[in-house]
Amino acid sequence: MAQQNQEKQAKGGKDEGIATRAQDYSQWYLDIIKRAELAENSAVRGCMVIRPHGYTIWEKMQRELDDRFKATGHVNAYFPLFIPLSFLTKEEKHASGFAKECAVVTHHRLMSKDGEVIVDPESKLEEPLVVRPTSETIIWSQYKNWIQSYRDLPLLINQWANVCRWEMRTRLFLRTAEFLWQEGHTAHASEAEAREETRRMLGVYADFAENVMAMPVVQGAKSPGETFPGAVQSLCIEAMMQDGKALQAGTSHYLGQNFAKSADVKFLNKEGQLEYVYATSWGVSTRLIGGLIMTHSDDNGLVCPPKLAPIHVVVVPIFRKDDEKAKVMEESDKVAAELRAQGLTVKIDDRDMHPGAKYYEWEMKGVPLRIEIGPKDIEKGSLCLVRRFVLEQEGESEQDQRKRKKTFPPRAEALASVKKLLDEMQGQLLDRAKAMRAKRTRVIDSIADFEKFFNDEGGGFAWVHWAGNAEQEGELAERFKTSVRCIPFEDQIPAEAKGEGKCILTGQPSMHRIVMAKAY
Amino acid sequence: MAQQNQEKQAKGGKDEGIATRAQDYSQWYLDIIKRAELAENSAVRGCMVIRPHGYTIWEKMQRELDDRFKATGHVNAYFPLFIPLSFLTKEEKHASGFAKECAVVTHHRLMSKDGEVIVDPESKLEEPLVVRPTSETIIWSQYKNWIQSYRDLPLLINQWANVCRWEMRTRLFLRTAEFLWQEGHTAHASEAEAREETRRMLGVYADFAENVMAMPVVQGAKSPGETFPGAVQSLCIEAMMQDGKALQAGTSHYLGQNFAKSADVKFLNKEGQLEYVYATSWGVSTRLIGGLIMTHSDDNGLVCPPKLAPIHVVVVPIFRKDDEKAKVMEESDKVAAELRAQGLTVKIDDRDMHPGAKYYEWEMKGVPLRIEIGPKDIEKGSLCLVRRFVLEQEGESEQDQRKRKKTFPPRAEALASVKKLLDEMQGQLLDRAKAMRAKRTRVIDSIADFEKFFNDEGGGFAWVHWAGNAEQEGELAERFKTSVRCIPFEDQIPAEAKGEGKCILTGQPSMHRIVMAKAY
Repeated sequence: MAQQNQEKQAKGGKDEGIATRAQDYSQWYLDIIKRAELAENSAVRGCMVIRPHGYTIWEKMQRELDDRFKATGHVNAYFPLFIPLSFLTKEEKHASGFAKECAVVTHHRLMSKDGEVIVDPESKLEEPLVVRPTSETIIWSQYKNWIQSYRDLPLLINQWANVCRWEMRTRLFLRTAEFLWQEGHTAHASEAEAREETRRMLGVYADFAENVMAMPVVQGAKSPGETFPGAVQSLCIEAMMQDGKALQAGTSHYLGQNFAKSADVKFLNKEGQLEYVYATSWGVSTRLIGGLIMTHSDDNGLVCPPKLAPIHVVVVPIFRKDDEKAKVMEESDKVAAELRAQGLTVKIDDRDMHPGAKYYEWEMKGVPLRIEIGPKDIEKGSLCLVRRFVLEQEGESEQDQRKRKKTFPPRAEALASVKKLLDEMQGQLLDRAKAMRAKRTRVIDSIADFEKFFNDEGGGFAWVHWAGNAEQEGELAERFKTSVRCIPFEDQIPAEAKGEGKCILTGQPSMHRIVMAKAY
Repeated sequence: MAQQNQEKQAKGGKDEGIATRAQDYSQWYLDIIKRAELAENSAVRGCMVIRPHGYTIWEKMQRELDDRFKATGHVNAYFPLFIPLSFLTKEEKHASGFAKECAVVTHHRLMSKDGEVIVDPESKLEEPLVVRPTSETIIWSQYKNWIQSYRDLPLLINQWANVCRWEMRTRLFLRTAEFLWQEGHTAHASEAEAREETRRMLGVYADFAENVMAMPVVQGAKSPGETFPGAVQSLCIEAMMQDGKALQAGTSHYLGQNFAKSADVKFLNKEGQLEYVYATSWGVSTRLIGGLIMTHSDDNGLVCPPKLAPIHVVVVPIFRKDDEKAKVMEESDKVAAELRAQGLTVKIDDRDMHPGAKYYEWEMKGVPLRIEIGPKDIEKGSLCLVRRFVLEQEGESEQDQRKRKKTFPPRAEALASVKKLLDEMQGQLLDRAKAMRAKRTRVIDSIADFEKFFNDEGGGFAWVHWAGNAEQEGELAERFKTSVRCIPFEDQIPAEAKGEGKCILTGQPSMHRIVMAKAY
């Protein structure tokens, strides 16, 4: 199809297609982002523009997450964009592991010179300011004012913000110099309570991933090498993309007393003793939109779980003559109004263009359901519903599948069924993603099988016993580009992977299997 | 009271009071922000921390505004934080009038040296990046890709973001180096349509100010000297604070084709000709929280309109003995549950401290309604409702006013009345603010009266005929610290100020009166 498009373009025709996953997975991902108008690169290296269709998905994600944060007792606040450079020296372990590639503000004034705008050299700041790559240091410097006794704890605060990491190789949504995220920063009176919070918020992320994004995840801990700099323990959720690679979709860190110590935040405990506060931090970002795309989309474009779809239903009026138009538009308005009354977001696409081009565009943009309304449908008292996808059946032709997407129920029945249909599609997406993951998951007991899985069979999640050190993990990374994605919690381990065993590389005893995979 | 507090503090007691408006208006404003825990200064010069109680007010403002933006056809998107310096040269008039005091990013990497974190001198950017003070230039560089023909118009996009202006003299909420805002940036096929949009969005702001913030505003145009750099015309809403000063609470600009020209954004119009696009931009910011405080609050702390209150009702259980506690807590939980079922936000304050201290705290934080529940209330089957404020009555003692705030209706009646009571309070705040404004508004026809008003009577809004030039406006500014706040729309002029006349300074003829005032 990519070749067809090049031919079309060469002939001056309009490029209508995108790369297929089989042809070029990376290009397919970028094509969807472009053609579904989700985001694009900007004039500033590595900084993306999130276009309205993509931003609406983010708004829906925010709403769902924010509701869950508030339901677990958190409140939002806002802390400064800038961090004084000296704060990073104070928490050196954090800074040296983390804050290397940062945007640094050094001046505070511009001036005009010979018709150009330049930086005023007289305006150099006494202390450079770092654009936040994450906010632990600045937030804990503030918490010092707010925490005196155990009565002030727990402090359960979240921030929605933009952050900046000067990544050298960027990729829309997955890795950009600036991105949007939320960062929770909580303070507790005991280690147990802080660890519980760390785990609770990972659970919130997992619930959101599975039940809203329809993206199954494995929950667990990071290996020491992948732990957040400054954290005692990092937990994560890992999802599998359609190419078998893992995507770290959210992290939740138990920070111990590290940040409290560097910011000198102590509290008077119930026993009347001064103690350093226990901390957590946790975050998810616009990276999730990349995960959403790569979990569900197909060669026709974006597939969006109904719970996050910017538009649930697009109504396309179809008519040839003017006398048909009035009737069809009236019915389209009525249908849209009835669906909106059910709380659904409905778009009537009455643009003056060929219906086929409209179908193509809304499929590309991932609208879950299309309703076509023509004079014949009105006559028959029925509606033509077209689902964005159906679950694949083995051996089915493309044409047969297309037929299954389309139904013509009586009008009343159709309108009464839409919400149920959207729920069903939401469930099917999760089922399909789980099936995809199962297909690319192996319980592996030898390096030979590991090699075969990643080199010959496309790879995926390998459940292996592992007792290697960081150097040995590096050895596997060099050979197969794999890494330890997570050390799963006991309840995350599938039955066939349970139990003790021996490390696939060293033969050393191992208590339970971990997940190895290539990763984004 | 300030003196009392100093004495208290000197004795090691806890400072419980705030400055009164009569004593020190500026200090009163800062005291409320501190004691109601709305915001505070951070370690970064001029950058504030918005604390949860203040941020919740902002979230409620956002929700109300965002709903109105969407109802008028706008969508949200996100554009980069950074603007290449060369973009400001392209739109020089804009930059030279505007972008002087900016945070400038010049480097992109840190390094560790001798245990300190420093800026890596090797990481200098080829082109400096300006942290956005406003986003016209970067957004229009992107619109160039999105607009080809009249079919792509109008483009109605809004962004919620942080922006940065390196102000030398900062003041919490009113003027800070970093602040939060929304900026609408729309593109249109004609001047008429763009001007209509400019006016529509000013109307949205005025509706929000009056009906949500309970803050009356005058709508009009800015004088040429106060017009946004790069705009053809700037519209504004101006509110009056309790000290008689004006606060510019929102602006909406008709930008003509200025930004389209510098970014070279043309569209094919219906006649098949290439034409530059017509633009608007409009914004409100966290400055509104400052306006909210200064419009409604009193010497007991924050007064918050119920529609923006983070907490609508605080329930304070009152008991002495343990057997009372169980009964009182049970009733408190029930009352809270019944109010929550009505959609209200309710807090039960069961902390182990004196009820009086609780009353004081929640009054300071502006909770509109308090319900005290003790064993006697349960016995009588009534509830004790205490309103945050009542409208002042002339000659009334403080004690009598306090009595009027408190009522003891039967339980069922009390619970059924809460929403109506909150609505009533919302309306009373608007009435009170209007009365306050009327009291400090004068129709003035001579410089002598103008002088008397601003020098002897405390000042306020002066409706005057004005035909002076910028220099003459500067002369008045020097003598009285006043400026032309806005040239009101015809329908904004009160009956007694209507009609033509002569400029109070020059005697030149003037078509209608404008508003002069001191301003924040």
